[in-house]
Amino acid sequence: MNVFIIGIGLIGGSFALDLKTVKKQVEIYGVDENEEHLEKALDLGLIDKKAKFEDIKNADLVYLAIPVDASLEVLPKILDLVSDKCVVIDAGSTKEHLCKKVENHPKRRNYLSAHPISGTEFSGPTAAIHGLFKNKTNIICEVEKTAFKLQEIALEIFQAIGMRIRYMDPASHDRHIAYVSHLSHISSFMLGKTVLEKEKNERDIFDLAGSGFESTVRLAKSSPAMWTPIFSQNKKNVMETLDEYISNLKHFRKLMEEDNFEEVFNEMEKTNHIREVLNGINKNEELKLQ
Amino acid sequence: MNVFIIGIGLIGGSFALDLKTVKKQVEIYGVDENEEHLEKALDLGLIDKKAKFEDIKNADLVYLAIPVDASLEVLPKILDLVSDKCVVIDAGSTKEHLCKKVENHPKRRNYLSAHPISGTEFSGPTAAIHGLFKNKTNIICEVEKTAFKLQEIALEIFQAIGMRIRYMDPASHDRHIAYVSHLSHISSFMLGKTVLEKEKNERDIFDLAGSGFESTVRLAKSSPAMWTPIFSQNKKNVMETLDEYISNLKHFRKLMEEDNFEEVFNEMEKTNHIREVLNGINKNEELKLQ
Repeated sequence: MNVFIIGIGLIGGSFALDLKTVKKQVEIYGVDENEEHLEKALDLGLIDKKAKFEDIKNADLVYLAIPVDASLEVLPKILDLVSDKCVVIDAGSTKEHLCKKVENHPKRRNYLSAHPISGTEFSGPTAAIHGLFKNKTNIICEVEKTAFKLQEIALEIFQAIGMRIRYMDPASHDRHIAYVSHLSHISSFMLGKTVLEKEKNERDIFDLAGSGFESTVRLAKSSPAMWTPIFSQNKKNVMETLDEYISNLKHFRKLMEEDNFEEVFNEMEKTNHIREVLNGINKNEELKLQ
Repeated sequence: MNVFIIGIGLIGGSFALDLKTVKKQVEIYGVDENEEHLEKALDLGLIDKKAKFEDIKNADLVYLAIPVDASLEVLPKILDLVSDKCVVIDAGSTKEHLCKKVENHPKRRNYLSAHPISGTEFSGPTAAIHGLFKNKTNIICEVEKTAFKLQEIALEIFQAIGMRIRYMDPASHDRHIAYVSHLSHISSFMLGKTVLEKEKNERDIFDLAGSGFESTVRLAKSSPAMWTPIFSQNKKNVMETLDEYISNLKHFRKLMEEDNFEEVFNEMEKTNHIREVLNGINKNEELKLQ
């Protein structure tokens, strides 16, 4: 099986690593604009060979893992090139624009629109790790538009690398993910910004910050090149989540200003319910491990 | 050495566990309003005996680890009871009010005002763990007001359980900690609230939430009974951090609204500097481990 990874970073590289462990006789080709990343990916054994974009015509599977603005340009060109038996999967964090972009492409049936809910705050080929997708959710959009046989090939791989599958329409995906992923990133970036601005003397952050701060600010290490186009493509939904978040923060501030600490207590107690929700996530992951 | 732990929860219980491993011939007495917690602490071996408040007169060391509003009431009563050779240490997350409260107490020299930057989102005696304080910072306020011999006793213990010591005045402590701890908790609670409100159908959170969301929302599991009095006592500083945080979020939203994604990128790139700050924290912890 000839697999082409377009964008050999955290996601593309981790997919390559997992694919090698679950598939016999797989040849992995890397395509990346960044020549250094390609060389690094070769060194690390993420890919078997470097390839040119036009070689995609020989692919059995193409995995597209580049920033979502670039995907809008690149996916149609990939579909132009691939053979009828090739399945093209993307891993982008926004789905509506991309699905719209290729809706009338003659090879739309070769494309499977997916979003693996997995990653770390790191990026590039050195960030690639084995097992990144294990017990993680893979959201598939517009599955009915992909050729049945190609769906099968993709699903067999997703299952082999340990992913749970959920089907969703692109608009719902983008709306929901704005809440549970995109907003978290902005809240984290702005928290980092607020503290950095204040604590000009970094020695103070360094000395007083505990694991709580580290946990809430972790996502502020994420790649701006990846996240800027996500916020741009999902602008409407993300702004809605931001409005609600800001309004909740202002309400909390107002309660404090009014010395209404009984209600401050209640706000937090109600939100403690997140424990059960998160426990649910972990319990399910444990169940899947058995 | 007779040690009295007042409030045998996450912090008090973990302190008891560490103390037993570093001190020979230590007898640990637990005092807690919650009889169930006391029984649990006995079962778990956190304490050797249950005790009454008035027994504190026999203490060599008292460790006060209760919500900060209760500390305001309880600390003067402890000082009323203790002998001259007893050191009383507290672990509260706000320091200005408490130091003010006892500034004229005749036994002020028996008190050492401290704040260990350590903890988890869990609470109660079952949350107590070995090594919670290892490589963590312990901020000590107004050290000059504590009797020299009693400082020595406390510092020897802090060193034995692996803590780094930093000295600070109470007002600076409360102002700095508002940024690196208190604000993180509010940002996390309000993030949890925003998502819970939107995703009435929890199945959706459960399916789409990844480790990023889990990390940013972790602190929203924290105890409202502990955090409400902290926000109340540190109201002025916390409201200032909230104002700056809200203003940064609004600015980010405005950039998005204006389609100024170049500046959105810059905002995130500048904040990526948090990587080096956090690496500094970890590097220092590694150094201390050597």
